[in-house]
Amino acid sequence: MNTSTLIAPPALVQRAEKQDTQAIQALDSAHFIHPFTDHGDLATRGARVITHADGIYVWDSEGNKILDGMSGLWCVNAGYGRKELADAAYQQLMTLPFYNSFFQTTNVPAVQLAAKLAALAPKVGDRSFNHVFFSSSGSESNDTNVRMARRYWDLLGQSQRKVIISRHNAYHGSTMAGASLGGMSGMHAQGDLPIPNITHIDQPYYFENARGGESKADFGLRAARWLEEKILEIGPEKVAAFIAEPVQGAGGVIIPPETYWPEIQRIVDQYGILLICDEVICAFGRLGHWFAYEKFGIKPDLVTFAKGVTSGYIPLGGVMVGNRVAEVLIDKGGEFNHGYTYSGHPVACAVGLANLNLMERENLPGRVRTETGPYLATQFEALKDHPLVGDAETCGFVAGLVLVKDKANKQMFDPDRAVGMICRGHCFRNGLIMRAVGDRMIIAPPLSMTVAQIDEMMGLIRRCLDATLADVRDQGLLA
Amino acid sequence: MNTSTLIAPPALVQRAEKQDTQAIQALDSAHFIHPFTDHGDLATRGARVITHADGIYVWDSEGNKILDGMSGLWCVNAGYGRKELADAAYQQLMTLPFYNSFFQTTNVPAVQLAAKLAALAPKVGDRSFNHVFFSSSGSESNDTNVRMARRYWDLLGQSQRKVIISRHNAYHGSTMAGASLGGMSGMHAQGDLPIPNITHIDQPYYFENARGGESKADFGLRAARWLEEKILEIGPEKVAAFIAEPVQGAGGVIIPPETYWPEIQRIVDQYGILLICDEVICAFGRLGHWFAYEKFGIKPDLVTFAKGVTSGYIPLGGVMVGNRVAEVLIDKGGEFNHGYTYSGHPVACAVGLANLNLMERENLPGRVRTETGPYLATQFEALKDHPLVGDAETCGFVAGLVLVKDKANKQMFDPDRAVGMICRGHCFRNGLIMRAVGDRMIIAPPLSMTVAQIDEMMGLIRRCLDATLADVRDQGLLA
Repeated sequence: MNTSTLIAPPALVQRAEKQDTQAIQALDSAHFIHPFTDHGDLATRGARVITHADGIYVWDSEGNKILDGMSGLWCVNAGYGRKELADAAYQQLMTLPFYNSFFQTTNVPAVQLAAKLAALAPKVGDRSFNHVFFSSSGSESNDTNVRMARRYWDLLGQSQRKVIISRHNAYHGSTMAGASLGGMSGMHAQGDLPIPNITHIDQPYYFENARGGESKADFGLRAARWLEEKILEIGPEKVAAFIAEPVQGAGGVIIPPETYWPEIQRIVDQYGILLICDEVICAFGRLGHWFAYEKFGIKPDLVTFAKGVTSGYIPLGGVMVGNRVAEVLIDKGGEFNHGYTYSGHPVACAVGLANLNLMERENLPGRVRTETGPYLATQFEALKDHPLVGDAETCGFVAGLVLVKDKANKQMFDPDRAVGMICRGHCFRNGLIMRAVGDRMIIAPPLSMTVAQIDEMMGLIRRCLDATLADVRDQGLLA
Repeated sequence: MNTSTLIAPPALVQRAEKQDTQAIQALDSAHFIHPFTDHGDLATRGARVITHADGIYVWDSEGNKILDGMSGLWCVNAGYGRKELADAAYQQLMTLPFYNSFFQTTNVPAVQLAAKLAALAPKVGDRSFNHVFFSSSGSESNDTNVRMARRYWDLLGQSQRKVIISRHNAYHGSTMAGASLGGMSGMHAQGDLPIPNITHIDQPYYFENARGGESKADFGLRAARWLEEKILEIGPEKVAAFIAEPVQGAGGVIIPPETYWPEIQRIVDQYGILLICDEVICAFGRLGHWFAYEKFGIKPDLVTFAKGVTSGYIPLGGVMVGNRVAEVLIDKGGEFNHGYTYSGHPVACAVGLANLNLMERENLPGRVRTETGPYLATQFEALKDHPLVGDAETCGFVAGLVLVKDKANKQMFDPDRAVGMICRGHCFRNGLIMRAVGDRMIIAPPLSMTVAQIDEMMGLIRRCLDATLADVRDQGLLA
């Protein structure tokens, strides 16, 4: 198994000098269609050009240094500038830049990464994860899940089990199936979505959806039982699977009450339906564990991954397939008529392997679980004192806070005022990337962030909250 | 725009020595779910382990050197071992390994590649291609096409235009939408496909579908008019788009008669429906042009690309958006609620840019158009003399031949005899990768292949055809 390849120590890369921002913006506007963007609006403002990065910081073409509180987009778990990931890519590109895994052929990095992922995925109850399907993204992986779940039931002679239950405000990608599984109404409004046999229940968002006086624990149980109600409404014999993010990410870091997941597990077990955990955001140390299902004691059948598996350095995604499904689909199912050209791409897998080895060596999941995560939690708890903050909470290295008009009565601002966007603007101007989801401000920093860097980030967050507070006061928006 | 980055000349990578094949095969079987594979069957045989590659050759873990007649999987247009692609990846990985292009941010390689693609895409009639949407695969790009086509009609107030017409035996990827657009019955049989409002017409396969005595020209017109019949059957006001590969690839290199595409163009123009060319296989020199639509004089509205854009070194795909769609969707359409985390991935785009520059400098499309492509065509024409070969044809650097039981009467073998697989086995044993699609044997070699290497490949092909002939004679399968 020793590949005995050698590579010279690569030289340091000299950083880009200040770039010709206007020329890049003009080309950008003329040619590059950005994801989820109003291009008329973008053309008038001009895009911010991110040119280089190191550690937890990115720089733009005007020379501004910005603390990246979002890890690129929940991706760069190991931080930027990791030479050993670049080295792994280079070595594999010069050895075997691509070969397919169809037609009974394989390649060493794909096999090694599959074995590594299987070794990292903890066994829970009667569920082990020995098999890995590779794709290039979370979207492709969730398409795979739909096809796998339905194929599983077909092979068991229950082909009427087609319905996948998901949740409103969930995010599961942007393919036709991914956007259908997701619960984003804006996405469903374009392109004739959702596709059939996908339905949604409400999310377990305590701040918005709890009844007056209801405890978190009671709300968690009630929210979980929306799944049971939906199963009974559809008929259990027609339901293939339930899919959910352990913590909803793009929806605004919605952290479920502790009672939620155990009750979900009780329900999927009772009705025998498959459980799909979409861990595109939550896996690889983000919540302090290699896989988030371990944290919540969930026993998923399929686990979607992407982003953090390579720290975003090279596109890679996939599905961890639990033994319940593997024994039917893989061991005895004949040919599964599905797969991608880049399933098991050698360069992507080599970088994935180097990334997991790096994270393991530096104990990044463990640091988030026992050291930096708890420290971040304390700091966010303290933010609740801020006049604008209606709630603030963390889970490992994701965190969210709600900007409110009236703290005492949990009253939100008029959405048309876009107070979250005002806050995001202050963040950018002050050298911090923090994302606005409506008026929820969210972060997911690189797991390599130190305690001192958390302090630096919290200082920036407080400064931006203060600036936002001054703005909304000036505009007379406070209660 | 000069990034003024420096990188030391990387050292040569030392090739892998003979590897422990059985250990890799055991790990492979235990953990790696391959695309489109029967894993019970694979476990008994053990996968062939491809370890390294250079130029047009790959090597397996047993030390066998194999001429890769399929470019990995229609991917490695520039050939293996291209140091400048590895250098480009390394430099970008050390500068900015990832940043997203949501939220009005951009990065230099994505902008530069979009501009480069727009410059390479020829204007045809009133159609120019100034805008590029990026994804990580052909599958994701075809999902994008469905969403874009329907959004386009929504914005024009014709939201009833939802139906996409495709073709049987087409291949458009393996997401739910991609597999639905594709015309592979085996894929439709798993996972509750196709999704709604996608329908299929027959393919323009002269060898199998022409009537006795019908000329190629007449058949081409008749096959194109199946589209018109389908449009009229559905109602033109309900049809959003027609999608097709200029030459069907995975279906078995189905090269349409010359009359086909002009008549298709007449029909889509007459009924005003969008034309989507899936050029995942055909673009980037494969047919002797940067984009295949130029060769056939087609005026597409959307063009899917992937594979060859990076020569497969890093996953990347996308859609070239013609001005007809861009003026509605991008310039005036507000936010298009679609996109991928890795849309405009800086490393993928940097490698794409380096690959296109390399192919331009070496004039690979031009060589295929005027030199190596015509030479390959002559060699395939000569194969028609072989007793097993019912037909043989090329188009640029894709080629296909049909193995037949009875040359005079164009009689095929019983599919259960899997004569194509017998031939593929001989190819592997003789150091040639040639793909079997039923009893059609197909190739798509790296565009860097020389005339001398074509001779070498043709020698291998003849040897394998002779060995296959001996087998089918022994088995009494000939007419």
